[in-house]
Amino acid sequence: MLATVIHAARDIRVEAVPDPLLSTGGDAIVRVVAACVCGSDLWPYRGITPTREPHRIGHEFVGVVEAVGDDVALVQVGDFVIAPFYVCDNTCVNCRNGVSTSCLNGSWWGGDDRFGGFADGGQGERVRVPLADGTLVVVPGPVADEEVPGLLTLADVMGTGYHAAVSAGVTAGSTVAVVGDGAVGLCAVIAARRLGASTIIAISRHRDRQELALEFGATHLVEGRGDEGVRAVRELTGGIGADHVLECVGTKESMDQALRSARPGGRVGFVGVPNGGPELPIRRMFDTNVGVVGGVAPVRGYIEELLPDVRSGAINPGRVFDLELPLADAAEAYAAMDERRAIKVLLRP
Amino acid sequence: MLATVIHAARDIRVEAVPDPLLSTGGDAIVRVVAACVCGSDLWPYRGITPTREPHRIGHEFVGVVEAVGDDVALVQVGDFVIAPFYVCDNTCVNCRNGVSTSCLNGSWWGGDDRFGGFADGGQGERVRVPLADGTLVVVPGPVADEEVPGLLTLADVMGTGYHAAVSAGVTAGSTVAVVGDGAVGLCAVIAARRLGASTIIAISRHRDRQELALEFGATHLVEGRGDEGVRAVRELTGGIGADHVLECVGTKESMDQALRSARPGGRVGFVGVPNGGPELPIRRMFDTNVGVVGGVAPVRGYIEELLPDVRSGAINPGRVFDLELPLADAAEAYAAMDERRAIKVLLRP
Repeated sequence: MLATVIHAARDIRVEAVPDPLLSTGGDAIVRVVAACVCGSDLWPYRGITPTREPHRIGHEFVGVVEAVGDDVALVQVGDFVIAPFYVCDNTCVNCRNGVSTSCLNGSWWGGDDRFGGFADGGQGERVRVPLADGTLVVVPGPVADEEVPGLLTLADVMGTGYHAAVSAGVTAGSTVAVVGDGAVGLCAVIAARRLGASTIIAISRHRDRQELALEFGATHLVEGRGDEGVRAVRELTGGIGADHVLECVGTKESMDQALRSARPGGRVGFVGVPNGGPELPIRRMFDTNVGVVGGVAPVRGYIEELLPDVRSGAINPGRVFDLELPLADAAEAYAAMDERRAIKVLLRP
Repeated sequence: MLATVIHAARDIRVEAVPDPLLSTGGDAIVRVVAACVCGSDLWPYRGITPTREPHRIGHEFVGVVEAVGDDVALVQVGDFVIAPFYVCDNTCVNCRNGVSTSCLNGSWWGGDDRFGGFADGGQGERVRVPLADGTLVVVPGPVADEEVPGLLTLADVMGTGYHAAVSAGVTAGSTVAVVGDGAVGLCAVIAARRLGASTIIAISRHRDRQELALEFGATHLVEGRGDEGVRAVRELTGGIGADHVLECVGTKESMDQALRSARPGGRVGFVGVPNGGPELPIRRMFDTNVGVVGGVAPVRGYIEELLPDVRSGAINPGRVFDLELPLADAAEAYAAMDERRAIKVLLRP
């Protein structure tokens, strides 16, 4: 089969690789219907995370089950499934606590899981899914083709934006600022709206993303960064800052802006992968009582909650895909996102 | 009148200073019935915070109102009052948001407030209280002498320990670990119990403090620090760590222990004044979804909530005072706390 392999910074290739095989009783083989490129895939693409040897890449996909192991009970051949961006059993104590990203038996796409050997990356034609009963969520059929982009966002970006809002404690009537206008930041706008925020400030300087933020429920746009951006958020929030700030980037500058955009006693929900960034300024947090809560988003736990809204069209996170390419053009997908020609690229095997 | 002045590290003197005078319409003059020494007073005492020139010290006191300005409406001459460790108007937007430590008009004891000039420190015979209607909480009389220690804890340590537990999100049935066995840590044990935690692990290696922790509701004691302490907490919490960890010290080591004692998705509530300590490790927080929430405790907002429990004896935070001295012996009070001969010292003018 074909799958995407990163060889080095800016060297993305779609290559022939071995077909996946059922290797534990709990596996499923999924034929990928759609995959996509994540903002975090750009760290190795840009060389910020070093690529020491060629390896599979991609961790977001939806597809149809082609085969299941003998022990699989909840997933059947022919099911349309969503895979979160990680593997989990959905039964261990951490999963039950809502932190399936810390599953005691979990693993990551494109790496070794602890039972079945190599698990494929998501940007390929097929994927062996370990712990299929825990990892996969079945979407009751039939699934229309136009539903695919929205369902695919539940593999990562929609759940991740939602985790930012949940971690920040967004509630009805609150004021929210969103730092980051990538797909996750835009989904965080949807999340804030869904949780009832009355003021949602999207921080963006790109026209196309601003428009999408407004469509998703942003009530205000702020273009400034740094001091200017902080000042603008304060002006929109009675001079004190936002109740909740959703940090969806992961750099030093974005976290600094997030912390300073929160009101005293406010909370930053963070989901941007910390990019070797600096540590958090505890004295500032102490003086202002601004808390910081979040992390790698346990999206598996949000899929069932968000699925009905995606299927009904109550929320439309699939709109973050503004470019669709065949899997064979994965290199161009990365380049388009790297150069900000696209917000998020959907790949069709 | 007499008041405590710090001249330099380990140089505490009780000196004659000017009597306080009403200087704004909103002031009250309070005759101090009892004051005390705070763990944070030990930073300048030890020279960790430099003392550039002699200044008043002390920020916890209860007393009786001797005079009020023309604009004071909620406090009357003769009232027994509790002063939180800071001045606030209790009406601004930050106060209304529950963060009175960030009051837009607030100030600190022993410094200039923005309306009335110098506000006395708490370790003296009398204190001019700016913004008396906002700052002071009246305790309905009569107040028995044996109630004084408990009421005095509401000026700081009981409310601060409570803030750790509230910030960490302690709820009924949860598991809690408390890092720090000073007065605040011990009050955090009371707080965790009051909020319904079913497992409360006190980390202490001092026999007297261990006994008080057990009396206050701790269900387990852990003596180890660092890796050993973290391992012990994990063993008591099903191998994963505590749901909530209350950080009541403020050093690098204590915060590290707190972060590593929390389970994935758990939360650290921190109230220890960060002692120039290092910044928070955001990557660890990201990977584990352990949030950090807390800061300088807005105790003014907790006094009314906790007062009935203190008066009824449902909670007994006054037990943290294990030494009582006349105000004239303030220097000995500092030495006793510095040398850990006392948990907390009450001073009587």
